Amino acid sequence: MIVVNRVVIESWERFYRANFINCLSGFKPVSLLGTINQQGQTNLGVFSNIIHIGADPALVGYINRPREAAPHTITNIESSGFYTINHIHFSFLEQAHQASAKYPEGISEFDKVGLSPEFREGFPAPFVRESVVKYALSLQEIIPVKINGTFLVIGKIETVFLAEGLLQQDGFIDLQKAGSVCSNGLDGYYATNPLGRFRYAKPGVNPLKITGHA
Amino acid sequence: MIVVNRVVIESWERFYRANFINCLSGFKPVSLLGTINQQGQTNLGVFSNIIHIGADPALVGYINRPREAAPHTITNIESSGFYTINHIHFSFLEQAHQASAKYPEGISEFDKVGLSPEFREGFPAPFVRESVVKYALSLQEIIPVKINGTFLVIGKIETVFLAEGLLQQDGFIDLQKAGSVCSNGLDGYYATNPLGRFRYAKPGVNPLKITGHA
Repeated sequence: MIVVNRVVIESWERFYRANFINCLSGFKPVSLLGTINQQGQTNLGVFSNIIHIGADPALVGYINRPREAAPHTITNIESSGFYTINHIHFSFLEQAHQASAKYPEGISEFDKVGLSPEFREGFPAPFVRESVVKYALSLQEIIPVKINGTFLVIGKIETVFLAEGLLQQDGFIDLQKAGSVCSNGLDGYYATNPLGRFRYAKPGVNPLKITGHA
Repeated sequence: MIVVNRVVIESWERFYRANFINCLSGFKPVSLLGTINQQGQTNLGVFSNIIHIGADPALVGYINRPREAAPHTITNIESSGFYTINHIHFSFLEQAHQASAKYPEGISEFDKVGLSPEFREGFPAPFVRESVVKYALSLQEIIPVKINGTFLVIGKIETVFLAEGLLQQDGFIDLQKAGSVCSNGLDGYYATNPLGRFRYAKPGVNPLKITGHA
Protein backbone atom coordinates (compact mmCIF):
# COMPACT_ATOMS: atom_id res chain seq x y z
CA MET A 1 0.00 0.00 0.00
CA ILE A 2 0.97 3.60 -0.59
CA VAL A 3 0.97 5.65 2.62
CA VAL A 4 0.63 9.43 2.39
CA ASN A 5 0.62 11.64 5.46
CA ARG A 6 -0.62 15.17 5.84
CA VAL A 7 2.83 16.75 5.70
CA VAL A 8 3.30 15.26 2.24
CA ILE A 9 -0.20 16.35 1.17
CA GLU A 10 0.50 19.92 2.27
CA SER A 11 3.74 19.93 0.25
CA TRP A 12 2.04 19.07 -3.04
CA GLU A 13 1.35 21.42 -5.95
CA ARG A 14 -2.14 22.88 -5.72
CA PHE A 15 -3.89 21.03 -8.58
CA TYR A 16 -2.27 17.70 -7.75
CA ARG A 17 -3.49 18.03 -4.16
CA ALA A 18 -6.97 19.15 -5.27
CA ASN A 19 -7.30 16.14 -7.56
CA PHE A 20 -6.16 13.74 -4.85
CA ILE A 21 -8.31 15.11 -2.02
CA ASN A 22 -11.39 15.48 -4.25
CA CYS A 23 -11.13 11.77 -5.06
CA LEU A 24 -10.77 10.54 -1.50
CA SER A 25 -14.31 11.30 -0.39
CA GLY A 26 -15.62 8.96 -3.11
CA PHE A 27 -18.06 9.23 -6.03
CA LYS A 28 -20.13 12.40 -5.95
CA PRO A 29 -23.67 13.44 -6.91
CA VAL A 30 -22.74 16.07 -9.50
CA SER A 31 -25.63 18.37 -10.51
CA LEU A 32 -26.43 21.76 -11.99
CA LEU A 33 -27.69 24.53 -9.71
CA GLY A 34 -29.96 27.06 -11.35
CA THR A 35 -30.42 30.56 -9.93
CA ILE A 36 -31.52 34.04 -11.00
CA ASN A 37 -30.36 37.47 -9.89
CA GLN A 38 -32.41 40.58 -9.13
CA GLN A 39 -32.00 41.82 -12.71
CA GLY A 40 -33.51 38.59 -14.06
CA GLN A 41 -30.15 37.20 -15.24
CA THR A 42 -30.07 33.39 -15.00
CA ASN A 43 -27.05 31.46 -13.75
CA LEU A 44 -26.08 27.82 -13.96
CA GLY A 45 -23.26 26.20 -11.98
CA VAL A 46 -21.82 22.70 -11.61
CA PHE A 47 -21.74 21.46 -8.03
CA SER A 48 -20.62 18.04 -6.85
CA ASN A 49 -20.54 18.63 -3.11
CA ILE A 50 -24.22 17.99 -2.52
CA ILE A 51 -25.49 16.12 0.52
CA HIS A 52 -28.72 14.66 1.86
CA ILE A 53 -29.48 16.35 5.19
CA GLY A 54 -32.82 14.77 6.09
CA ALA A 55 -36.10 13.44 4.71
CA ASP A 56 -38.60 14.99 7.16
CA PRO A 57 -38.40 17.89 6.58
CA ALA A 58 -36.89 17.18 3.16
CA LEU A 59 -33.53 18.98 3.20
CA VAL A 60 -30.57 18.99 0.82
CA GLY A 61 -27.30 20.84 1.38
CA TYR A 62 -24.36 21.81 -0.75
CA ILE A 63 -20.95 23.31 -0.07
CA ASN A 64 -20.36 26.71 -1.65
CA ARG A 65 -16.70 27.69 -1.91
CA PRO A 66 -15.57 31.01 -0.41
CA ARG A 67 -17.42 34.00 -1.84
CA GLU A 68 -14.42 35.39 -3.69
CA ALA A 69 -13.99 32.06 -5.54
CA ALA A 70 -17.66 31.32 -6.29
CA PRO A 71 -19.89 34.34 -5.73
CA HIS A 72 -22.78 34.08 -8.21
CA THR A 73 -24.80 31.10 -7.04
CA ILE A 74 -24.76 31.92 -3.32
CA THR A 75 -25.49 35.61 -3.93
CA ASN A 76 -28.48 34.77 -6.11
CA ILE A 77 -29.79 32.28 -3.56
CA GLU A 78 -29.54 34.86 -0.81
CA SER A 79 -31.33 37.52 -2.78
CA SER A 80 -34.14 35.41 -4.27
CA GLY A 81 -34.45 32.72 -1.57
CA PHE A 82 -34.89 30.01 -4.20
CA TYR A 83 -32.83 27.73 -6.45
CA THR A 84 -33.06 24.52 -8.43
CA ILE A 85 -30.95 21.34 -8.49
CA ASN A 86 -30.93 19.47 -11.81
CA HIS A 87 -29.34 16.06 -12.32
CA ILE A 88 -26.74 15.76 -15.05
CA HIS A 89 -27.37 12.89 -17.47
CA PHE A 90 -24.81 11.50 -19.86
CA SER A 91 -26.92 12.74 -22.78
CA PHE A 92 -25.76 16.32 -22.02
CA LEU A 93 -22.58 15.76 -20.03
CA GLU A 94 -20.33 17.93 -22.21
CA GLN A 95 -22.69 20.89 -22.02
CA ALA A 96 -23.02 20.48 -18.27
CA HIS A 97 -19.26 20.36 -17.70
CA GLN A 98 -18.86 23.54 -19.76
CA ALA A 99 -21.11 25.31 -17.25
CA SER A 100 -18.19 25.06 -14.79
CA ALA A 101 -16.26 27.65 -16.84
CA LYS A 102 -15.97 31.07 -15.19
CA TYR A 103 -18.19 33.31 -17.27
CA PRO A 104 -18.51 36.98 -16.29
CA GLU A 105 -21.43 37.98 -14.11
CA GLY A 106 -23.48 39.46 -16.94
CA ILE A 107 -23.45 36.27 -19.00
CA SER A 108 -25.77 33.31 -18.47
CA GLU A 109 -24.19 29.87 -18.73
CA PHE A 110 -27.48 28.71 -20.28
CA ASP A 111 -26.78 30.84 -23.35
CA LYS A 112 -23.20 29.69 -23.68
CA VAL A 113 -23.31 25.94 -23.11
CA GLY A 114 -26.43 24.95 -25.02
CA LEU A 115 -28.80 24.05 -22.20
CA SER A 116 -32.30 25.50 -21.93
CA PRO A 117 -33.70 27.45 -18.99
CA GLU A 118 -37.21 26.42 -18.07
CA PHE A 119 -39.58 28.18 -15.65
CA ARG A 120 -42.24 26.00 -14.05
CA GLU A 121 -45.08 26.30 -11.54
CA GLY A 122 -44.39 29.98 -10.91
CA PHE A 123 -41.05 29.18 -9.36
CA PRO A 124 -38.58 32.10 -9.75
CA ALA A 125 -35.36 30.09 -10.36
CA PRO A 126 -34.70 28.38 -13.69
CA PHE A 127 -34.68 24.61 -14.17
CA VAL A 128 -32.63 22.82 -16.83
CA ARG A 129 -35.12 21.62 -19.43
CA GLU A 130 -32.91 18.70 -20.50
CA SER A 131 -32.78 17.24 -16.97
CA VAL A 132 -35.34 14.54 -16.10
CA VAL A 133 -34.69 14.56 -12.32
CA LYS A 134 -34.85 18.07 -10.88
CA TYR A 135 -36.23 19.88 -7.90
CA ALA A 136 -36.82 23.34 -6.52
CA LEU A 137 -35.58 24.44 -3.11
CA SER A 138 -36.27 27.30 -0.74
CA LEU A 139 -33.28 28.54 1.22
CA GLN A 140 -33.42 27.52 4.89
CA GLU A 141 -30.00 28.29 6.29
CA ILE A 142 -26.46 29.22 5.26
CA ILE A 143 -24.00 27.82 7.79
CA PRO A 144 -20.45 29.24 7.59
CA VAL A 145 -17.70 26.62 7.83
CA LYS A 146 -15.16 28.85 9.54
CA ILE A 147 -12.20 26.52 9.22
CA ASN A 148 -11.88 27.18 5.47
CA GLY A 149 -14.33 29.94 4.59
CA THR A 150 -16.85 27.72 2.79
CA PHE A 151 -20.60 27.56 3.43
CA LEU A 152 -23.08 24.74 3.94
CA VAL A 153 -26.19 25.99 2.12
CA ILE A 154 -29.34 24.12 3.16
CA GLY A 155 -32.57 24.17 1.20
CA LYS A 156 -35.98 22.62 1.66
CA ILE A 157 -37.38 20.64 -1.25
CA GLU A 158 -40.44 22.44 -2.55
CA THR A 159 -41.36 20.69 -5.81
CA VAL A 160 -39.90 17.71 -7.65
CA PHE A 161 -40.05 16.97 -11.38
CA LEU A 162 -39.36 13.42 -12.55
CA ALA A 163 -39.68 11.77 -15.93
CA GLU A 164 -42.26 8.96 -16.12
CA GLY A 165 -40.99 5.45 -15.41
CA LEU A 166 -38.33 6.29 -12.81
CA LEU A 167 -40.37 6.10 -9.60
CA GLN A 168 -40.64 2.64 -8.03
CA GLN A 169 -43.45 1.32 -5.87
CA ASP A 170 -41.58 2.00 -2.62
CA GLY A 171 -40.46 5.56 -3.38
CA PHE A 172 -37.07 4.59 -4.84
CA ILE A 173 -36.05 6.64 -7.89
CA ASP A 174 -34.13 4.69 -10.53
CA LEU A 175 -31.33 7.16 -11.22
CA GLN A 176 -29.43 4.67 -13.33
CA LYS A 177 -32.39 4.42 -15.70
CA ALA A 178 -32.52 8.23 -15.71
CA GLY A 179 -28.92 8.27 -16.92
CA SER A 180 -27.81 10.44 -14.00
CA VAL A 181 -24.03 10.56 -13.75
CA CYS A 182 -21.72 10.76 -10.77
CA SER A 183 -18.26 12.30 -10.64
CA ASN A 184 -14.86 11.70 -9.10
CA GLY A 185 -12.18 14.23 -8.38
CA LEU A 186 -12.23 17.49 -10.31
CA ASP A 187 -13.07 16.23 -13.78
CA GLY A 188 -13.99 12.53 -13.96
CA TYR A 189 -17.57 11.45 -14.78
CA TYR A 190 -19.15 8.00 -14.50
CA ALA A 191 -22.25 6.09 -15.45
CA THR A 192 -23.48 3.40 -13.05
CA ASN A 193 -24.28 -0.32 -13.05
CA PRO A 194 -26.68 -1.62 -10.42
CA LEU A 195 -25.29 -4.13 -7.91
CA GLY A 196 -28.65 -4.61 -6.22
CA ARG A 197 -30.87 -3.31 -3.50
CA PHE A 198 -30.34 -4.84 -0.09
CA ARG A 199 -32.72 -5.68 2.70
CA TYR A 200 -32.82 -3.43 5.74
CA ALA A 201 -29.98 -4.89 7.83
CA LYS A 202 -30.73 -6.38 11.24
CA PRO A 203 -28.44 -8.08 13.78
CA GLY A 204 -28.40 -11.86 13.42
CA VAL A 205 -29.76 -11.96 9.88
CA ASN A 206 -26.62 -12.80 7.92
CA PRO A 207 -25.71 -13.32 5.14
CA LEU A 208 -27.91 -10.76 3.52
CA LYS A 209 -30.13 -11.61 0.64
CA ILE A 210 -30.06 -9.29 -2.30
CA THR A 211 -33.60 -8.43 -3.32
CA GLY A 212 -32.63 -7.73 -6.89
CA HIS A 213 -32.47 -4.28 -8.36
CA ALA A 214 -35.71 -2.34 -8.59
CA MET B 1 -43.30 14.50 -16.15
CA ILE B 2 -44.43 13.62 -12.66
CA VAL B 3 -44.75 16.69 -10.42
CA VAL B 4 -44.63 16.24 -6.64
CA ASN B 5 -44.93 19.17 -4.27
CA ARG B 6 -43.93 19.37 -0.64
CA VAL B 7 -47.45 18.93 0.72
CA VAL B 8 -47.62 15.55 -1.02
CA ILE B 9 -44.11 14.63 0.22
CA GLU B 10 -45.10 15.44 3.80
CA SER B 11 -48.19 13.24 3.49
CA TRP B 12 -46.25 10.12 2.53
CA GLU B 13 -45.51 7.12 4.73
CA ARG B 14 -42.12 7.46 6.42
CA PHE B 15 -40.11 4.83 4.50
CA TYR B 16 -41.58 5.76 1.14
CA ARG B 17 -40.60 9.39 1.77
CA ALA B 18 -37.14 8.42 3.02
CA ASN B 19 -36.48 6.35 -0.10
CA PHE B 20 -37.65 9.15 -2.38
CA ILE B 21 -35.76 12.00 -0.72
CA ASN B 22 -32.58 9.94 -0.29
CA CYS B 23 -32.57 9.34 -4.06
CA LEU B 24 -33.09 12.96 -5.09
CA SER B 25 -29.67 14.23 -4.03
CA GLY B 26 -28.05 11.73 -6.44
CA PHE B 27 -25.47 8.96 -6.21
CA LYS B 28 -23.60 8.94 -2.90
CA PRO B 29 -20.06 8.11 -1.72
CA VAL B 30 -20.98 5.30 0.69
CA SER B 31 -18.17 4.34 3.08
CA LEU B 32 -17.48 2.67 6.44
CA LEU B 33 -16.54 4.86 9.41
CA GLY B 34 -14.29 3.17 11.97
CA THR B 35 -14.15 4.40 15.58
CA ILE B 36 -13.18 3.16 19.04
CA ASN B 37 -14.61 4.00 22.45
CA GLN B 38 -12.79 4.66 25.72
CA GLN B 39 -13.06 0.99 26.70
CA GLY B 40 -11.27 -0.08 23.51
CA GLN B 41 -14.47 -1.34 21.83
CA THR B 42 -14.33 -0.86 18.05
CA ASN B 43 -17.32 0.34 16.03
CA LEU B 44 -18.06 0.32 12.33
CA GLY B 45 -20.88 2.23 10.66
CA VAL B 46 -22.16 2.74 7.11
CA PHE B 47 -22.39 6.39 6.08
CA SER B 48 -23.38 7.71 2.68
CA ASN B 49 -23.71 11.39 3.48
CA ILE B 50 -20.03 12.24 3.11
CA ILE B 51 -18.85 15.48 1.52
CA HIS B 52 -15.64 17.09 0.35
CA ILE B 53 -15.20 20.34 2.29
CA GLY B 54 -11.82 21.53 0.98
CA ALA B 55 -8.38 20.45 -0.22
CA ASP B 56 -6.14 22.93 1.62
CA PRO B 57 -6.47 22.15 4.45
CA ALA B 58 -7.73 18.70 3.46
CA LEU B 59 -11.18 18.43 5.04
CA VAL B 60 -13.98 15.88 4.72
CA GLY B 61 -17.37 16.11 6.40
CA TYR B 62 -20.24 13.77 7.03
CA ILE B 63 -23.77 14.15 8.36
CA ASN B 64 -24.46 12.33 11.61
CA ARG B 65 -28.14 11.79 12.33
CA PRO B 66 -29.56 13.00 15.67
CA ARG B 67 -27.81 11.47 18.67
CA GLU B 68 -30.77 9.35 19.76
CA ALA B 69 -30.89 7.70 16.30
CA ALA B 70 -27.12 7.22 15.73
CA PRO B 71 -25.13 7.73 18.94
CA HIS B 72 -22.09 5.44 18.71
CA THR B 73 -19.96 6.92 15.94
CA ILE B 74 -20.28 10.56 16.98
CA THR B 75 -19.73 9.76 20.66
CA ASN B 76 -16.57 7.82 19.87
CA ILE B 77 -15.26 10.60 17.63
CA GLU B 78 -15.86 13.17 20.35
CA SER B 79 -14.09 11.12 23.01
CA SER B 80 -11.08 9.95 20.97
CA GLY B 81 -10.78 12.82 18.50
CA PHE B 82 -10.02 10.40 15.64
CA TYR B 83 -11.80 8.19 13.12
CA THR B 84 -11.27 6.45 9.80
CA ILE B 85 -13.17 6.47 6.50
CA ASN B 86 -12.87 3.29 4.43
CA HIS B 87 -14.24 2.91 0.91
CA ILE B 88 -16.63 0.03 0.29
CA HIS B 89 -15.70 -2.13 -2.69
CA PHE B 90 -18.02 -4.58 -4.38
CA SER B 91 -15.81 -7.45 -3.17
CA PHE B 92 -17.22 -6.99 0.35
CA LEU B 93 -20.46 -5.14 -0.26
CA GLU B 94 -22.71 -7.60 1.61
CA GLN B 95 -20.54 -7.46 4.73
CA ALA B 96 -20.42 -3.67 4.56
CA HIS B 97 -24.19 -3.33 4.25
CA GLN B 98 -24.65 -5.61 7.25
CA ALA B 99 -22.65 -3.09 9.33
CA SER B 100 -25.69 -0.81 9.05
CA ALA B 101 -27.64 -3.13 11.39
CA LYS B 102 -28.24 -1.72 14.88
CA TYR B 103 -26.02 -3.81 17.10
CA PRO B 104 -25.99 -3.06 20.85
CA GLU B 105 -23.28 -0.76 22.18
CA GLY B 106 -21.13 -3.58 23.61
CA ILE B 107 -20.85 -5.41 20.28
CA SER B 108 -18.40 -4.55 17.51
CA GLU B 109 -19.76 -4.69 13.97
CA PHE B 110 -16.32 -5.97 12.92
CA ASP B 111 -16.95 -9.22 14.82
CA LYS B 112 -20.44 -9.67 13.42
CA VAL B 113 -20.14 -8.85 9.74
CA GLY B 114 -16.85 -10.50 8.80
CA LEU B 115 -14.62 -7.49 8.23
CA SER B 116 -11.22 -7.10 9.91
CA PRO B 117 -10.13 -4.22 12.13
CA GLU B 118 -6.63 -3.04 11.39
CA PHE B 119 -4.53 -0.60 13.41
CA ARG B 120 -1.85 1.30 11.50
CA GLU B 121 0.80 3.94 12.14
CA GLY B 122 -0.12 4.28 15.80
CA PHE B 123 -3.51 5.69 14.89
CA PRO B 124 -6.11 4.96 17.62
CA ALA B 125 -9.16 4.30 15.40
CA PRO B 126 -9.53 1.05 13.44
CA PHE B 127 -9.29 0.81 9.66
CA VAL B 128 -11.07 -1.85 7.59
CA ARG B 129 -8.35 -4.22 6.39
CA GLU B 130 -10.32 -5.21 3.27
CA SER B 131 -10.57 -1.60 2.02
CA VAL B 132 -7.92 -0.40 -0.44
CA VAL B 133 -8.82 3.32 -0.25
CA LYS B 134 -8.93 4.54 3.34
CA TYR B 135 -7.84 7.47 5.43
CA ALA B 136 -7.54 8.66 9.00
CA LEU B 137 -9.06 11.90 10.22
CA SER B 138 -8.70 14.13 13.25
CA LEU B 139 -11.87 15.83 14.43
CA GLN B 140 -11.90 19.55 13.65
CA GLU B 141 -15.44 20.69 14.30
CA ILE B 142 -18.95 19.40 14.92
CA ILE B 143 -21.48 21.86 13.53
CA PRO B 144 -25.07 21.36 14.70
CA VAL B 145 -27.68 21.62 11.95
CA LYS B 146 -30.45 23.01 14.12
CA ILE B 147 -33.24 22.68 11.60
CA ASN B 148 -33.38 18.88 11.99
CA GLY B 149 -31.03 17.97 14.84
CA THR B 150 -28.29 16.47 12.68
CA PHE B 151 -24.58 17.34 12.77
CA LEU B 152 -21.98 18.17 10.17
CA VAL B 153 -18.85 16.45 11.50
CA ILE B 154 -15.66 17.81 9.89
CA GLY B 155 -12.31 16.03 10.03
CA LYS B 156 -8.85 16.80 8.73
CA ILE B 157 -7.18 14.12 6.65
CA GLU B 158 -4.13 12.88 8.55
CA THR B 159 -2.92 9.79 6.68
CA VAL B 160 -4.10 8.07 3.50
CA PHE B 161 -3.66 4.41 2.54
CA LEU B 162 -4.05 3.43 -1.11
CA ALA B 163 -3.45 0.19 -2.94
CA GLU B 164 -0.69 0.35 -5.57
CA GLY B 165 -1.81 1.20 -9.11
CA LEU B 166 -4.67 3.59 -8.29
CA LEU B 167 -2.84 6.91 -8.16
CA GLN B 168 -2.46 8.72 -11.49
CA GLN B 169 0.28 11.14 -12.49
CA ASP B 170 -1.81 14.20 -11.73
CA GLY B 171 -3.08 13.14 -8.30
CA PHE B 172 -6.32 11.57 -9.56
CA ILE B 173 -7.27 8.34 -7.77
CA ASP B 174 -8.91 5.72 -10.01
CA LEU B 175 -11.82 4.71 -7.75
CA GLN B 176 -13.41 2.65 -10.49
CA LYS B 177 -10.30 0.46 -10.70
CA ALA B 178 -10.38 0.22 -6.90
CA GLY B 179 -13.89 -1.20 -7.14
CA SER B 180 -15.32 1.50 -4.88
CA VAL B 181 -19.11 1.52 -4.99
CA CYS B 182 -21.60 4.34 -4.74
CA SER B 183 -25.14 4.17 -3.42
CA ASN B 184 -28.59 5.55 -4.13
CA GLY B 185 -31.46 5.94 -1.73
CA LEU B 186 -31.50 3.82 1.41
CA ASP B 187 -30.36 0.49 -0.01
CA GLY B 188 -29.22 0.59 -3.65
CA TYR B 189 -25.54 0.06 -4.56
CA TYR B 190 -23.78 0.67 -7.86
CA ALA B 191 -20.52 0.02 -9.64
CA THR B 192 -19.29 2.65 -12.10
CA ASN B 193 -18.28 2.94 -15.76
CA PRO B 194 -15.98 5.79 -16.74
CA LEU B 195 -17.38 8.37 -19.17
CA GLY B 196 -14.11 10.28 -19.35
CA ARG B 197 -12.13 13.02 -17.74
CA PHE B 198 -12.79 16.49 -19.08
CA ARG B 199 -10.53 19.46 -19.63
CA TYR B 200 -10.75 22.33 -17.19
CA ALA B 201 -13.61 24.35 -18.66
CA LYS B 202 -13.01 27.88 -19.90
CA PRO B 203 -15.33 30.39 -21.57
CA GLY B 204 -15.12 30.28 -25.36
CA VAL B 205 -13.55 26.84 -25.61
CA ASN B 206 -16.47 24.78 -26.76
CA PRO B 207 -17.23 22.00 -27.50
CA LEU B 208 -15.08 20.33 -24.92
CA LYS B 209 -12.67 17.65 -25.82
CA ILE B 210 -12.70 14.56 -23.71
CA THR B 211 -9.16 13.64 -22.74
CA GLY B 212 -10.04 9.99 -22.25
CA HIS B 213 -10.21 8.32 -18.91
CA ALA B 214 -7.05 8.23 -16.80
